[in-house]
Amino acid sequence: MNSLGKMFKLAVFGESHGKCVGVVVDGCPAGLKVDERKIQGELDRRKPGQSKVATARSESDKLVVLSGVFEGRATGAPIAMLVWNEDAKSVDYEKMKNLPRPGHADFTAQEKYGGFNDYRGGGIFSGRVTAALVMAGALAKQVLESKGIIIAAHAKKIGSVETSREFSASEMARESEKNIVRSADASAAARMVREIEKAKSEGDSVGGVVECVAEGVPAGIGEPLFEKLDAEIAKALFSIPSVKGVEFGSVKEKGSGNNDEFVVKNGCVSCRTNNAGGVLAGISSGMPLKFTVKVKPTSSIARKQKTVNLKTLKQEELEVHGRHDACIVPRVIPVVEAATAVVLLDQLMQAQKIGRIIK
Amino acid sequence: MNSLGKMFKLAVFGESHGKCVGVVVDGCPAGLKVDERKIQGELDRRKPGQSKVATARSESDKLVVLSGVFEGRATGAPIAMLVWNEDAKSVDYEKMKNLPRPGHADFTAQEKYGGFNDYRGGGIFSGRVTAALVMAGALAKQVLESKGIIIAAHAKKIGSVETSREFSASEMARESEKNIVRSADASAAARMVREIEKAKSEGDSVGGVVECVAEGVPAGIGEPLFEKLDAEIAKALFSIPSVKGVEFGSVKEKGSGNNDEFVVKNGCVSCRTNNAGGVLAGISSGMPLKFTVKVKPTSSIARKQKTVNLKTLKQEELEVHGRHDACIVPRVIPVVEAATAVVLLDQLMQAQKIGRIIK
Amino acid sequence: MNSLGKMFKLAVFGESHGKCVGVVVDGCPAGLKVDERKIQGELDRRKPGQSKVATARSESDKLVVLSGVFEGRATGAPIAMLVWNEDAKSVDYEKMKNLPRPGHADFTAQEKYGGFNDYRGGGIFSGRVTAALVMAGALAKQVLESKGIIIAAHAKKIGSVETSREFSASEMARESEKNIVRSADASAAARMVREIEKAKSEGDSVGGVVECVAEGVPAGIGEPLFEKLDAEIAKALFSIPSVKGVEFGSVKEKGSGNNDEFVVKNGCVSCRTNNAGGVLAGISSGMPLKFTVKVKPTSSIARKQKTVNLKTLKQEELEVHGRHDACIVPRVIPVVEAATAVVLLDQLMQAQKIGRIIK
Amino acid sequence: MNSLGKMFKLAVFGESHGKCVGVVVDGCPAGLKVDERKIQGELDRRKPGQSKVATARSESDKLVVLSGVFEGRATGAPIAMLVWNEDAKSVDYEKMKNLPRPGHADFTAQEKYGGFNDYRGGGIFSGRVTAALVMAGALAKQVLESKGIIIAAHAKKIGSVETSREFSASEMARESEKNIVRSADASAAARMVREIEKAKSEGDSVGGVVECVAEGVPAGIGEPLFEKLDAEIAKALFSIPSVKGVEFGSVKEKGSGNNDEFVVKNGCVSCRTNNAGGVLAGISSGMPLKFTVKVKPTSSIARKQKTVNLKTLKQEELEVHGRHDACIVPRVIPVVEAATAVVLLDQLMQAQKIGRIIK
Repeated sequence: MNSLGKMFKLAVFGESHGKCVGVVVDGCPAGLKVDERKIQGELDRRKPGQSKVATARSESDKLVVLSGVFEGRATGAPIAMLVWNEDAKSVDYEKMKNLPRPGHADFTAQEKYGGFNDYRGGGIFSGRVTAALVMAGALAKQVLESKGIIIAAHAKKIGSVETSREFSASEMARESEKNIVRSADASAAARMVREIEKAKSEGDSVGGVVECVAEGVPAGIGEPLFEKLDAEIAKALFSIPSVKGVEFGSVKEKGSGNNDEFVVKNGCVSCRTNNAGGVLAGISSGMPLKFTVKVKPTSSIARKQKTVNLKTLKQEELEVHGRHDACIVPRVIPVVEAATAVVLLDQLMQAQKIGRIIK
Repeated sequence: MNSLGKMFKLAVFGESHGKCVGVVVDGCPAGLKVDERKIQGELDRRKPGQSKVATARSESDKLVVLSGVFEGRATGAPIAMLVWNEDAKSVDYEKMKNLPRPGHADFTAQEKYGGFNDYRGGGIFSGRVTAALVMAGALAKQVLESKGIIIAAHAKKIGSVETSREFSASEMARESEKNIVRSADASAAARMVREIEKAKSEGDSVGGVVECVAEGVPAGIGEPLFEKLDAEIAKALFSIPSVKGVEFGSVKEKGSGNNDEFVVKNGCVSCRTNNAGGVLAGISSGMPLKFTVKVKPTSSIARKQKTVNLKTLKQEELEVHGRHDACIVPRVIPVVEAATAVVLLDQLMQAQKIGRIIK
Repeated sequence: MNSLGKMFKLAVFGESHGKCVGVVVDGCPAGLKVDERKIQGELDRRKPGQSKVATARSESDKLVVLSGVFEGRATGAPIAMLVWNEDAKSVDYEKMKNLPRPGHADFTAQEKYGGFNDYRGGGIFSGRVTAALVMAGALAKQVLESKGIIIAAHAKKIGSVETSREFSASEMARESEKNIVRSADASAAARMVREIEKAKSEGDSVGGVVECVAEGVPAGIGEPLFEKLDAEIAKALFSIPSVKGVEFGSVKEKGSGNNDEFVVKNGCVSCRTNNAGGVLAGISSGMPLKFTVKVKPTSSIARKQKTVNLKTLKQEELEVHGRHDACIVPRVIPVVEAATAVVLLDQLMQAQKIGRIIK
Repeated sequence: MNSLGKMFKLAVFGESHGKCVGVVVDGCPAGLKVDERKIQGELDRRKPGQSKVATARSESDKLVVLSGVFEGRATGAPIAMLVWNEDAKSVDYEKMKNLPRPGHADFTAQEKYGGFNDYRGGGIFSGRVTAALVMAGALAKQVLESKGIIIAAHAKKIGSVETSREFSASEMARESEKNIVRSADASAAARMVREIEKAKSEGDSVGGVVECVAEGVPAGIGEPLFEKLDAEIAKALFSIPSVKGVEFGSVKEKGSGNNDEFVVKNGCVSCRTNNAGGVLAGISSGMPLKFTVKVKPTSSIARKQKTVNLKTLKQEELEVHGRHDACIVPRVIPVVEAATAVVLLDQLMQAQKIGRIIK
């Protein structure tokens, strides 16, 4: 339902226009030095209002830790964290109760919950709830970093602008924060910004592709059949609103070109290429994990759209006011990293490569 | 690990060259008339040796039901099913124990299990183990069909040959069985066959894309955050060997073109288009579920490949003998349908749209 | 870890001396009218300082609902609830960091979490954390009551005083609230109070037995093997601190006397007796659920006790100051009811006897 | 449903009068030397027909391993095991389809599965299905033994005969196999046998109490709130047919007498007494685990009993023919050990005290 993981478990709560968005993280290794500034840093990367290409909704998204941390370290007990909602303008949404916005959860949520769902701003389906994932992911990242595992993502494509350059995780992490679209390719970034601004000026939105790399993942992580590493990561990624596709590595047309031949590097078994994206038969190969995430153009656009009044079953026109992201890709990037971190840590703990106590 | 689902649960066992491949299905609604011929039919669609483009390994894959069915109906207790292995030629594999085949689980499985894994033919990682998923899926399909839900898949692309034609689930089901590559587009199918034969003659292999459609799924299925319908389906699909990507619907570049506007059809809320592939915010919209699955070219090829001897850590050359599929797409198709059926039924039962007793 | 349930799921957080104690309830049927006064009422039955036989720690335990309720009804999204800690006196505990109190979690928690646990007042192991279970249980009770299911518990035994009288659920609910030990047998209650006061005056504590009855549970609830109704209830009951035993029904020595013969009552199949306590082979029989819970005497006593200094590994004497319950049975009673309600609702939802939407 | 565990997972299948009883064990540490004779030995302790106090049903219960073992060792993949049914006499049961036997699952199973359950001999609810638990437990025991953990149980009470003597696990294991009731107290055993024979001669049955001890369990095992060690063991024990109660340690009336004071033994923290039964706040204390299990008298008795014809809803008399155990306690003992072993191993793996690979 609203929980994820087995050894490192998340239970998420909150809504776009309710009191808060929060997460209970169960299973964080005891002893971890919890750096709240780092968690706040990840929240800041995700938060609204951070640039001219993001929504103008103003939320400070200040981290509150409710439990599970004592004298600066994880105790082993559940870590509950939340951010309060401050700038929720429900009035914008009330009149739209019966007018489902195309591309949003409005219609399907009603169908699921018999109309009792909190429809304001999408309720629990709002992208705002990814703040919960980001807090949990920031914790997971701290554990992973202590084991030498680095996760980074960037904008590979926005609108029609795509970079074909390859970046390591550390390059991605460093370069992508230098521009507001978070692309490690500076020249592509400039064009991406223009593409977003053009769409915005037309009352429209654009999508894109996020690329993510995780380095330092040891070989042998993942389960054979239904909890394969790629399967679990894909599942977590699809939990992010607006994600429509996930692809690992870069598949070549012929087997002869696609197979990653084994070689010896620094005395260890390695692969000559990494078309598989670091996962062989669902198990990590020791090569960098590498995958792309397709993000649809934001559903909230300033144009008039057709919809159906759910009460009258009559066709109506809808104009979605409010403060939207003309492209959500830059804000999805920290969420993709968070989802990846959460799954990786869970799987590493299942594989007993990371203990339940960290000293 | 090797189980899937919550209300309709699978536990899979077996290996490529062990005694059998089987599955325990827990939660099948009591009272279901179990049509063993239909399960056998799905096994036959998956089994080796069925055409000139499939491996020559000869397995009758005859269904054995061990438990959970009484007087032709599901009792509510776990249904254990298996197929015995008959034509396993282990001798082919023993000499390769220390020579991991590129693209296969050989290396990662050793890393995961400390070298104790059954390496013969990939052991549990073998594509042969998908027979378990197919048996479970065939059961699920029977429940779904009784509720008017139809799932069908076909080869949308093989090698460089791709069809852009759109098909309904029933067209797919009917047309795709008329050719050995299982493409609903007959003219594309002929070219696909040629593409496979060419690759085979060159000792190579090709990949492709499977497209799957599920019709009749009611709106409101799926969970909000981490057990979204698309997330769960993606997870199950990535559990199929050689799947590298999953994409729902067909994302358009701009929000204005991508949003599926709501319309009234036959007195019900519907969508004018289905770019979302039937899933909005992780919940079914009532439109047909539609997604594509990227399949890599088979890793077993007849060419010499470079690998590393895991004992000596020396570079060696490897020639994989044996009976391979030059393209696995046609045999993956029933597995994609099975995985989809299993997840859909599980979610429908969670949503209480399908009861625990069927009369 | 710190979660429970499948369809009605709990994730608990908080500590005795941290900021708060809370719970995320996932899966509460949408549409339920959430009566916060009833939840508060259950918290009040559990809270400290309510009578002369309970600890003097003063907590208002005021319910805060953070999410999942909109316009007075459950939305279907997770319901997060908490109570803030107010009267935590950590200073009492700090000096005891290395002196584990006999009968408490102090030693085992250190072993489990490598000494990083929040040791103040037992941290997450504190009985205070049962407030989370009580909030969740109060929600579950509201759903169950709407279906005609009533759960009630009372003190059957405290110290050496035991009542042999039998009570229906409604009698228990009504009578037990008339005295501070919560026994439905008023005359036994008076003697129980004296027994507690005597123990208290001696710096000692007493235990007892809680009896619980659930009426209105339909036949057919529970799973055959590992999620039997009695197994799941027992598991939840053992999650309550100080519970050491659980017994269903009242087993007679001989099969001839123990078997509950079937009879027809009001045109329905019923049982002449209820030695089984309403559970046959793990499945509810339609007779009232009936079980007893053995509660150990409170571990916190005012006497000097021997312990070991975990730093020096030297024997020391320990005097536990602070405000203790000389008998915890009266406060355990609402927790037993809560645990039972949570499991029953979960199982009823699994059995699809209670829907995911309530109108 | 019919599965148990998280890291060491069981999925059980089979029925009393179907083809077989089996189990899929997922998560057995790779590398474990699987001693099939030991598994067979445990099956033999449970199997029918082993003594004059057990049922005369004749089953060889010969172990069949279907998967997961290669060259004598666990591979890490699921281990499927089964025993075939040989002496099922269904004819005895068919006429009883509509006459539920008091104390059996006949009525509740019909209620649960709408009458589609396999009613022959109780179907999946039959005590015969505990053979699955025994096979899985025998595997778990092998892992535990390799870590110095010993589990043993014996008959503490049968009918009215009870021993008050205390035994270590090794004494229990050794002494209890010397008599057919499996009591470590030889003199009590003789009287227990007479009690059973007397009951049998009267067409009646008796119950009893099993005591179980696990030695060598390290401190710190178990989860804080809902997966406490005692809670998980209790749950598994209640999954055994005819178990009605579980109690840990031996609770004393006063806190002063009940608290186990800490002492130093051999340089380690230990307890002077073990009233807690080795579990403090749900976490193992390092003292021996110790608990008792109340077993009801066998429901199958040779006397006439009243029941209701489920078709006519008329009262009828029922005479249960067939081959019954006049006391099931001796055969429950290996099942109690098995359930305990399975839970302990699962929790030790969760706590990362036992790895996923054993060399």
